[in-house]
Amino acid sequence: MKITTGQIATIVEGIVDGDPDVVITGPSPIEEGRPGTVSFLSNPKYEQFLYSTNASAVLVHEDFSPTMKINPSLIRVKDVGASIAKLFEHFSTRYETPHSISEHAFIHEDALTSPNISVGMYSVISEGVKVGAGTVIHSQVFVGKNVTLGKNVTLYAGVKIYHDCVIGDNCILHSNVVVGSDGFGFTKNTEGQYEKIPHLGNVIIESNVEIGSNSTVDRGTIGDTIIRKGVKLDNLVQIAHNAEIGENTVMASQSGVAGSSKVGKNCVIGGQVGIIGHLKIADGTMIQGQSGVTRSINEENSKLYGTPAISYQNYLRSYSHFKNLPDLASQVRALQKEIEKLKDINPDINPEK
Amino acid sequence: MKITTGQIATIVEGIVDGDPDVVITGPSPIEEGRPGTVSFLSNPKYEQFLYSTNASAVLVHEDFSPTMKINPSLIRVKDVGASIAKLFEHFSTRYETPHSISEHAFIHEDALTSPNISVGMYSVISEGVKVGAGTVIHSQVFVGKNVTLGKNVTLYAGVKIYHDCVIGDNCILHSNVVVGSDGFGFTKNTEGQYEKIPHLGNVIIESNVEIGSNSTVDRGTIGDTIIRKGVKLDNLVQIAHNAEIGENTVMASQSGVAGSSKVGKNCVIGGQVGIIGHLKIADGTMIQGQSGVTRSINEENSKLYGTPAISYQNYLRSYSHFKNLPDLASQVRALQKEIEKLKDINPDINPEK
Amino acid sequence: MKITTGQIATIVEGIVDGDPDVVITGPSPIEEGRPGTVSFLSNPKYEQFLYSTNASAVLVHEDFSPTMKINPSLIRVKDVGASIAKLFEHFSTRYETPHSISEHAFIHEDALTSPNISVGMYSVISEGVKVGAGTVIHSQVFVGKNVTLGKNVTLYAGVKIYHDCVIGDNCILHSNVVVGSDGFGFTKNTEGQYEKIPHLGNVIIESNVEIGSNSTVDRGTIGDTIIRKGVKLDNLVQIAHNAEIGENTVMASQSGVAGSSKVGKNCVIGGQVGIIGHLKIADGTMIQGQSGVTRSINEENSKLYGTPAISYQNYLRSYSHFKNLPDLASQVRALQKEIEKLKDINPDINPEK
Repeated sequence: MKITTGQIATIVEGIVDGDPDVVITGPSPIEEGRPGTVSFLSNPKYEQFLYSTNASAVLVHEDFSPTMKINPSLIRVKDVGASIAKLFEHFSTRYETPHSISEHAFIHEDALTSPNISVGMYSVISEGVKVGAGTVIHSQVFVGKNVTLGKNVTLYAGVKIYHDCVIGDNCILHSNVVVGSDGFGFTKNTEGQYEKIPHLGNVIIESNVEIGSNSTVDRGTIGDTIIRKGVKLDNLVQIAHNAEIGENTVMASQSGVAGSSKVGKNCVIGGQVGIIGHLKIADGTMIQGQSGVTRSINEENSKLYGTPAISYQNYLRSYSHFKNLPDLASQVRALQKEIEKLKDINPDINPEK
Repeated sequence: MKITTGQIATIVEGIVDGDPDVVITGPSPIEEGRPGTVSFLSNPKYEQFLYSTNASAVLVHEDFSPTMKINPSLIRVKDVGASIAKLFEHFSTRYETPHSISEHAFIHEDALTSPNISVGMYSVISEGVKVGAGTVIHSQVFVGKNVTLGKNVTLYAGVKIYHDCVIGDNCILHSNVVVGSDGFGFTKNTEGQYEKIPHLGNVIIESNVEIGSNSTVDRGTIGDTIIRKGVKLDNLVQIAHNAEIGENTVMASQSGVAGSSKVGKNCVIGGQVGIIGHLKIADGTMIQGQSGVTRSINEENSKLYGTPAISYQNYLRSYSHFKNLPDLASQVRALQKEIEKLKDINPDINPEK
Repeated sequence: MKITTGQIATIVEGIVDGDPDVVITGPSPIEEGRPGTVSFLSNPKYEQFLYSTNASAVLVHEDFSPTMKINPSLIRVKDVGASIAKLFEHFSTRYETPHSISEHAFIHEDALTSPNISVGMYSVISEGVKVGAGTVIHSQVFVGKNVTLGKNVTLYAGVKIYHDCVIGDNCILHSNVVVGSDGFGFTKNTEGQYEKIPHLGNVIIESNVEIGSNSTVDRGTIGDTIIRKGVKLDNLVQIAHNAEIGENTVMASQSGVAGSSKVGKNCVIGGQVGIIGHLKIADGTMIQGQSGVTRSINEENSKLYGTPAISYQNYLRSYSHFKNLPDLASQVRALQKEIEKLKDINPDINPEK
């Protein structure tokens, strides 16, 4: 995509201070600005980079005055933050897929598709699937029988959705995400071997959910695994059978929730966190990366750390003493010696029973 | 699928106490019972839900007498647990794939297939592959050269199996599982760069193994990576080159076993557990979630926790003191002060060398 | 592949001590040597296995003399290590793909391909893609718009690469790796919901990088995620947006680097390690498995352990005291009692304010 500094100024309702005909192909961070790109100065502490950047243009506040000579053209705007969002939006349209259905895709004759959908190559849309308007299914995606996809859903290449699952409007599932595989449920038979429990439940993903690459969401045993609206899951996240993730909760990469646990709304769960099964986690809980949560959290907005997880502050406090344990142990040994000496000069306490 | 309460009673050899013509479309948990579904009351502590459930029918023990008015029809059976299994089995057949080979699949002319197999769309069965009777290969699966698939194997959409690997009878591999990729083996050359060690070994998966979505099993360097019969691996599990997982061992999500480690039979390995390379883990070992095992475990049925993992009981005991470390440190400081005071009033010990 | 002991001797410039016509189909480890395979004795401590191995041939140093009767033919060589490398190389060629482009692959007419490339079945090469000479793209791979693949790149079945990403010469990406998915970047709007930040950056992977199965590398927000040359990532590894991994750094399975962190050269990062965002990790840092790094590491060649990670030695030292905490706490209790006794017989200190 090519655009001039003048055209950018029109998009962001700004004024070019410099050459309006410089050709721009995309954005770049100001500290690594490349020729032919536009950067941004929103945080004053980055101002130093303005004087050395190789970016061809920089968005600045309309009142900004440089204190040294600068190379890039400036585009002066009322609100740098809002302008960035507007411009990013503009740049990100470059890869919008034209709505089309590949001749190399398979769509079952009993699938119900809407106008303006896309289906990429070697994708499979099974019997009974419903696809909402504006939904984009990239290549090599599998959508199982009777799955419901809402409007404006995006399924990137390689997503696999098992039968019956429901994906809400505006959801984005990144490459190789798996939704609806059987949960990890077995019973031991009399010979001590595990036998599979059929998983008859489902996965319900509400609207505006984004799920990162290679993450997995298992279907319920009976009853459903539920991802509430606005949830954001990073890459390689595991959601087990019958778990529920509350509205607007975010989970960073490689974290996992075990079976039947209910995570509240607006929680912030760090990377590599594990939550064991059958717990309730209150709304607004924040869990530091790598923590292991082994009990229900009833108080809202708690902040947790450690394995098993305790309060964040208490963990850090205990951990600072953990680091000093060799010292503490020496101090105790020293005290023992002192006590022995004191006892030697207070012999009357020694024979005590 | 639709079935009446009367037909369910026939399947589970029970008696309908209520309307035998209610139409049921599937099971639901009693506490979230939906109209048109059948629930179960096997654990007495859930009895309260019987009186409020919206399920249309509930399986109960033949001797059960409700203490309040109930809405659902009851289906009285001798053994609720066994009846659940029988009924789940019945419901789960709804998605049985009719045995068919898609015209959009590729099967090499030198692959050896059996009767009653299924191959889904855009799947690839390479040269020299053997496929056992009743095996179901879903869409977009890749089966590399000379792979052997046993009888009644299920490979879900997107499974990738590299050349030569052997998958035993009745195995289930969920979507996007990778079997047989090269292990993480390199040697440093004289310039300090890593050079790849070719991986000439294989992966042998015995019968009745289930592997969860997006899990990975690497091939051996020389010699094989082995998953023994009855092993169950959850989602996002990593099995490194030349590892061996013993019979009926289960590993929860996001756990991993590093190179050449041998895990015994009947072990229970929690989520996000890591086992470093070249260890032996005795039969029946239980490892709590997020533990890191860094030494061989020789005693059977040990229970471990922590990083590095120690005995489960000892970890919890130490951790309870860890949580009180700020207190313990204060107590030591208090003791130091007391000692100073005692020394002040026992001046004869101070000048001691 | 079949080869005789005599032919092996020619390849490794050795001498057969035994039958030169034994047919060999591959290598095996000496302790598990199978008939029809060749093993190796490079480490003297494995000599015992020479006398019991079922391997048909064993490579040994030219000066080696057995102390007992042996069954296999020996192949005497100057340097066992170098001979293994040579022979492995030879055996590993058995699965070299003949260069061919499947008629069941899609290559956009505006993609730029080089001679001697392979494209497997149901793979998609999008508009504007450049493919270097000798590159092998296996089945069901997706290569997005304007991606650049260097020379001799190998993409295994199921790899997905989003638009614009750059993959250097000789890189190997194992099955179901995802490169270029959007980073985990959101802003909260005034209603407390997360809104997606478009990811306009890219992923640059330099030459000689290997990435294990089901690993994920996200694209930058603006600016790029960079994997420097010679980096080796194991399976299920996560590299977040705008992270940078330095030359010849290795990361074991299930480890992850959060957004914008810069990891130095020649680092060794254990399995299940997490590195939080916006850090700098000095060259040569070694991080023990399951550690959580929460601060920048400035000193080169540091060795870290724990969550939060501290020095490896200090962590182990503190952890050995952690294991003894119940004892230490008892000792403190005992001291408190002793002090009380001493105070009782030194009553003049008790009334002190």
